[in-house]
Amino acid sequence: VIIARVTGTVVATAKEPRLEGMKMLLLQPTDAAGQPTKGAPVVAVDAVGAGVHDLVLYAAGSSARQTELTKDKPVDAVVMAIVDLIENQGGIAYRKS
Amino acid sequence: VIIARVTGTVVATAKEPRLEGMKMLLLQPTDAAGQPTKGAPVVAVDAVGAGVHDLVLYAAGSSARQTELTKDKPVDAVVMAIVDLIENQGGIAYRKS
Amino acid sequence: VIIARVTGTVVATAKEPRLEGMKMLLLQPTDAAGQPTKGAPVVAVDAVGAGVHDLVLYAAGSSARQTELTKDKPVDAVVMAIVDLIENQGGIAYRKS
Amino acid sequence: VIIARVTGTVVATAKEPRLEGMKMLLLQPTDAAGQPTKGAPVVAVDAVGAGVHDLVLYAAGSSARQTELTKDKPVDAVVMAIVDLIENQGGIAYRKS
Amino acid sequence: VIIARVTGTVVATAKEPRLEGMKMLLLQPTDAAGQPTKGAPVVAVDAVGAGVHDLVLYAAGSSARQTELTKDKPVDAVVMAIVDLIENQGGIAYRKS
Repeated sequence: VIIARVTGTVVATAKEPRLEGMKMLLLQPTDAAGQPTKGAPVVAVDAVGAGVHDLVLYAAGSSARQTELTKDKPVDAVVMAIVDLIENQGGIAYRKS
Repeated sequence: VIIARVTGTVVATAKEPRLEGMKMLLLQPTDAAGQPTKGAPVVAVDAVGAGVHDLVLYAAGSSARQTELTKDKPVDAVVMAIVDLIENQGGIAYRKS
Repeated sequence: VIIARVTGTVVATAKEPRLEGMKMLLLQPTDAAGQPTKGAPVVAVDAVGAGVHDLVLYAAGSSARQTELTKDKPVDAVVMAIVDLIENQGGIAYRKS
Repeated sequence: VIIARVTGTVVATAKEPRLEGMKMLLLQPTDAAGQPTKGAPVVAVDAVGAGVHDLVLYAAGSSARQTELTKDKPVDAVVMAIVDLIENQGGIAYRKS
Repeated sequence: VIIARVTGTVVATAKEPRLEGMKMLLLQPTDAAGQPTKGAPVVAVDAVGAGVHDLVLYAAGSSARQTELTKDKPVDAVVMAIVDLIENQGGIAYRKS
């Protein structure tokens, strides 16, 4: 599970039929304070109603298909939580505003 | 799910029988604006009729087998969408021409 | 299986229903002596009652769903052991204090 | 799916019984022209009769078990095609000699 | 499948019950000559009686669960062969002593 910032969205008309109606978010992996890491951008299906600027958690690989929305779908990344608070090293690293 | 540019194709006569008839695309991972990242080139099966120069999305791992075409096949990457538009940081990062 | 230090926790109210009640730990991958490596931070579900400062082992991918707690859940990392002792290169690299 | 050069072979007498009789190839990941990339060497089971010097494609992860040969085996990489031709950027990047 | 040197062992008393009795080895990924690569250390379950100093092969991901020992266990890496000989670039890169 990786922490990432939602920075945008991806629109694709021509796609595998099983992907119809799924909202695809553009994510930038971040550290525990929400600062971008060197990780490349990733696209993930939204399973929790996340929006641009939210700090989220996404799961990759076959685990990305373990939601009602993504079951048996050809997606390998799903946003499955919106982060409220991260405690790190004894302090508060991030709090949703 | 990773954003990538289709830069070419791969032909292989000697291959696992289950791969017969599949079109294999050469992909260069890109950022949200379609610019190449440092990621190494990847080969993926085409499930959506993508062509050279298209910006596409591909899924990796077991999720790559979740299409009619790739079910139970020894492939770990599938192109499952052609990108029309990417919004990033409040602007348009990429639009299909 | 990767060695990591628990450095904090992540709280998320809006999440996939299947994740209710799971404790999510913030992990920093380390070497055999418990020193941080360059690996980016990871979030994993706790299956063994680990706490902040513990050196732990986590499994990723589909293997992360092979516990009673995480079965069929959209998580791709699980803490499944708390490290007591690591022997490396003929000496003791780490001992839990 | 990754492009790689077969550079050698690996012999192991003591091994998991399910691996008996499998030919294990040493692979160096390459770019589309067959030139080595920075990727570390990988060992993969041969499913297509590939030989040293061949440029091949290999699949990783659970997809590596989707051949008759590797079904239910503890291997996470399989060579499933020998490359004849790679077209890239409008030209011929590699042709089997 | 990755080549690695066994450099030590990991002991964990508090662990997922399914991991009871499994021997966990500390591995350093190596090149074909047995020299350490930049890859971070990995912990894997031993399925072949490997010992410290042995050069071994390990499989990762779901493939790590395809042994009698690791079936349905929350482990994502298994040592499934002890290397006797590696031929590379027409010469002998490694021979077990």
